[in-house]
Amino acid sequence: MDQQLVLALDAMGGDRAPGMVIKGLNIARKRYPEVRYILFGDSDKVGTALKKFPKLSIKCEVRHTSQIISSNDKPSTALRRARDSSMRRAIDSVRNGEAQGIVSAGNTGALMAIAKIVLKMVNEIDRPAIVGVFPSLRGESVTLDLGANIECSSENLVQFAIMGAAFARIVLGIKKPLVGLLNVGTEDLKGNESVKEASNILKLSEQNLAFNFSGFVEGDDIGPGTVDVFVTDGFTGNIALKTAEGTAKFYSQVLKSAFRRSLFSKLGYLLAKPALTAIRKRVDPRSYNGALFVGLNGVVVKSHGGTDAKGFANAIGVAIDMIQGGFNQEIIEDLKKVKVENSSVPEVIDS
Amino acid sequence: MDQQLVLALDAMGGDRAPGMVIKGLNIARKRYPEVRYILFGDSDKVGTALKKFPKLSIKCEVRHTSQIISSNDKPSTALRRARDSSMRRAIDSVRNGEAQGIVSAGNTGALMAIAKIVLKMVNEIDRPAIVGVFPSLRGESVTLDLGANIECSSENLVQFAIMGAAFARIVLGIKKPLVGLLNVGTEDLKGNESVKEASNILKLSEQNLAFNFSGFVEGDDIGPGTVDVFVTDGFTGNIALKTAEGTAKFYSQVLKSAFRRSLFSKLGYLLAKPALTAIRKRVDPRSYNGALFVGLNGVVVKSHGGTDAKGFANAIGVAIDMIQGGFNQEIIEDLKKVKVENSSVPEVIDS
Repeated sequence: MDQQLVLALDAMGGDRAPGMVIKGLNIARKRYPEVRYILFGDSDKVGTALKKFPKLSIKCEVRHTSQIISSNDKPSTALRRARDSSMRRAIDSVRNGEAQGIVSAGNTGALMAIAKIVLKMVNEIDRPAIVGVFPSLRGESVTLDLGANIECSSENLVQFAIMGAAFARIVLGIKKPLVGLLNVGTEDLKGNESVKEASNILKLSEQNLAFNFSGFVEGDDIGPGTVDVFVTDGFTGNIALKTAEGTAKFYSQVLKSAFRRSLFSKLGYLLAKPALTAIRKRVDPRSYNGALFVGLNGVVVKSHGGTDAKGFANAIGVAIDMIQGGFNQEIIEDLKKVKVENSSVPEVIDS
Repeated sequence: MDQQLVLALDAMGGDRAPGMVIKGLNIARKRYPEVRYILFGDSDKVGTALKKFPKLSIKCEVRHTSQIISSNDKPSTALRRARDSSMRRAIDSVRNGEAQGIVSAGNTGALMAIAKIVLKMVNEIDRPAIVGVFPSLRGESVTLDLGANIECSSENLVQFAIMGAAFARIVLGIKKPLVGLLNVGTEDLKGNESVKEASNILKLSEQNLAFNFSGFVEGDDIGPGTVDVFVTDGFTGNIALKTAEGTAKFYSQVLKSAFRRSLFSKLGYLLAKPALTAIRKRVDPRSYNGALFVGLNGVVVKSHGGTDAKGFANAIGVAIDMIQGGFNQEIIEDLKKVKVENSSVPEVIDS
């Protein structure tokens, strides 16, 4: 890259900020020595935390902010009243071009609301979406939208498909991802009007796009990972993925109690423990830290509020991958190849 | 009950029909000695299968039918062209009052389509719903709709709540079930208009109804079983529950491979095996055989097509419980206590 990569950090977001943020940043520094950071937050606290890491300090610029958005603040209040918060000023720095992306472990709703208003959407993207990465039998798969949009048109779903595929290419390294549209069955007649029309548009445009479209998929395709990218509206996506999380918890609780049933099963657990521990990471949906807000002018990564330094470093890594991989340029390219506006029969541009 | 309980059986539905149906019926006969059955199907085949069970034979009447609806038939075709099929004639017998309910392991779409047209909906119920029972940390919980209705109004959701609660009372024996509405968050402002309005109606009507309403719940409440009844539209319900099934499969696959990792883990598995086997039934979503179609004039139970005799006997048990428990009378009682039609502010009748 010609331009120096600069990342803005909300140093006050997250349960253990700013200490956790600085520690995470120090892990990321070793992985990405070329990146520089602007840290927004209480300059005393951030400065104290930085003192322990002199090699990191020289890559960071600290900017003092006087406000903090808490996890209980309403997005609308945060948007209007917290102009000098660490989160807001970090996002402002992306808008004015000082940084190319921002990572925050703060209030999700506030981050989405402020990013949407301040950064605005990429041209031709109507609404941003929340992307998540989940483990599957085939490796990892991408699902969106996880809750940013309660009701979605066919155009929204097509845009989600394009953004999800770009994410799978850049972050997961899948050259030509396979994309599926979640529905209640795989036959063409199934589902609501939005999914039916989105499927038609994607089928017609597929040959020009940087991914393959596999048509409708069902909820039980997510665990096996039948496709790389699962596209759905934010209402269904949020409920389905939270249901999966709850199921995983249920399963592991029941397993724990089974191992406690007898002396034999306790002994069996001890023998199998190394193997069980090794797989725990793989099945834990939380090991994939953070959700991406895609479709905005700038890369916005939300880390879980309760994450540790290692998890936060992973969130930073995702942001850097997205910027270096040219995520927004890729989706703009693909969007040009699908013309859906005001037309139920899409105009497909020959490649 | 004053009236003799008679159940109609689609003897030709299911992968191993009619043998599996007759064997299942023989298990059910021992549990419910008072019930009589009308079997619809190929009289030669059904007669031959019945010969092995003389004690069952005297409780059965066989009616010959000349057609079979296969699992590949379209619901619309089955509805128009298979008037003398075992499924259709079994449903007809419920409409003309000879039987109070029907159990079939045949084509799900055809069963729903024919039952809807032939039996019609209970007064004041706009649409039937599909109910499923799933394991949870607290025991079992009920979820509906699992896919009968792609788009749902607030009135539909309120009716689903009433039907789900009646199911939990009668089939699961929960005296005053706790009902939750699936949403993307628990705050009042979250979700689409249907769920918001349904929540308002249920809050206002709750004191008169035979269940408690806990407001909005999220997808990750299903595994722990935070409430007894989860209410949602058929699009979300179908995708969420299939996602849970896929997650359970993913989890058990990963577990299997962990036990195969080393000699120690293999030995550990052998020691823990009895405990692991004992819990398998609890976590398998398929151990709850069948889905209920509720809201119709008559009890309609769909057993899985691939079920065995034991599973089919359970489906028969659910149908008998629903009839003996007066399921439809209960929902009619509760429906009278919620007046929602053409009114966003519901009229609540004091009890």
